[in-house]
Amino acid sequence: MNIILIEQSELAGGQVTLTDHRAKHIVKVLKSQVGDRLRLGVIDSDMGGATVLALTPKYPFVVTLQVELQPGRPSLPAIDLLLALPRPIMLKRILSQVTALGVGTIYLVNANRVEKSFWDASLLAEKEYRKHLLQGLEQAVDSHLPSVQMYRKFRPFVEDVLPEIAPRYDTLLLAHPQTESLLSQCMQGKRGRVLYAVGPEGGWVDFEVEKMRAAGMAPFSMGARILKVDTAVVAIHSRISQSLESEPGALLQTNE
Amino acid sequence: MNIILIEQSELAGGQVTLTDHRAKHIVKVLKSQVGDRLRLGVIDSDMGGATVLALTPKYPFVVTLQVELQPGRPSLPAIDLLLALPRPIMLKRILSQVTALGVGTIYLVNANRVEKSFWDASLLAEKEYRKHLLQGLEQAVDSHLPSVQMYRKFRPFVEDVLPEIAPRYDTLLLAHPQTESLLSQCMQGKRGRVLYAVGPEGGWVDFEVEKMRAAGMAPFSMGARILKVDTAVVAIHSRISQSLESEPGALLQTNE
Repeated sequence: MNIILIEQSELAGGQVTLTDHRAKHIVKVLKSQVGDRLRLGVIDSDMGGATVLALTPKYPFVVTLQVELQPGRPSLPAIDLLLALPRPIMLKRILSQVTALGVGTIYLVNANRVEKSFWDASLLAEKEYRKHLLQGLEQAVDSHLPSVQMYRKFRPFVEDVLPEIAPRYDTLLLAHPQTESLLSQCMQGKRGRVLYAVGPEGGWVDFEVEKMRAAGMAPFSMGARILKVDTAVVAIHSRISQSLESEPGALLQTNE
Repeated sequence: MNIILIEQSELAGGQVTLTDHRAKHIVKVLKSQVGDRLRLGVIDSDMGGATVLALTPKYPFVVTLQVELQPGRPSLPAIDLLLALPRPIMLKRILSQVTALGVGTIYLVNANRVEKSFWDASLLAEKEYRKHLLQGLEQAVDSHLPSVQMYRKFRPFVEDVLPEIAPRYDTLLLAHPQTESLLSQCMQGKRGRVLYAVGPEGGWVDFEVEKMRAAGMAPFSMGARILKVDTAVVAIHSRISQSLESEPGALLQTNE
């Protein structure tokens, strides 16, 4: 936890009192004392610092902070992810990792090779998946919570939703091993917003690839090695960030 | 498991009989039948195919394969990793992920912020960590087992070992957030072999950074976001691969 994140509603008169895992973290991991300064942000709003006004050094932990925010909301990351719903244990890790890397929206969609049972996972409830997004923000020192959108049917998504959101992006990419083009070639000279799609274990089926190509998504390959979905997401996200960085004038995925 | 890997010693008269998790995988996951063809490789040697000669469809699973190898050993990946020893659960994941991405040697070293207990992990025994390397190879369809080398003392490593291995590399990189240079700048125009170093949770201490700089390692940053070690390793590895790919004549990290 490299930043303490709070809800706007927790802030009262410029102070906040924490009694949960955040209080424990401040006492046990940061080993803070009264008077110490911490990094603090309000979810989807300003970031800044806080001063410890009071704390209980033993369980149950209670920490009261005086909050000093710097105006200026976090900028929207330049990269969005379209992901065939993976198994819950992998989804958890992906949510916190892409949030740490910087993502605007995560579209979770169905695909032929997605196991039906994955859609029943308790992780898909907002109060469950939100924890993993927050972990990513707390790690990366960011307060911009990604938006997560779920589409349990592929066809309505690709025929109705994708054409509607596609114009928001400058680059639409589809990870697909049976392709000649490398990601770096697809990104050459590109800037602005990027949406990239990663398929399920075993890959997209032909129908899905054709539908996404028809919606303007350009297939690319990462080379001959086959990667697991979680490794692929981090590897691709990182390469796209690097390509955007190296184009002058590109939007940065960081907040600074 | 996208390729079945066997030891050279398991091969007898062009055939191999499997009775462990590989046999189970062939029967239960691949649902192979007699006569089916599979991808197969010999660890640290040739890859090719195999034909199912016989199999037991129920527990205990036994599968006999006729092996046909194509001569041509896998090429050595162009990237090596110098990693401050992480906690075992994270190390497991990193070992299989960097092996899938393609790594030649993994140097595990001590650092000031490495918890001493990490060096007692049972995972550090070869028969334990080798499983995770094999998982990475089975995922990526490769047979080149990375070398893992451990240095329980930082100073002898950085003073004696690093100067000895440094000349093997064309680029020596040190991930260090408090730096202006971006990775893409450090990699500009670079080709050949790369060694990159990733520190412990909380980062390298100044002494360690100074010592590694003195040995020729160039510090770089990935931007303002702070990443967990496992995310950082995949993100950096992938960016280095991309930079090498885009340089004409660079060694590829893949086998094709």
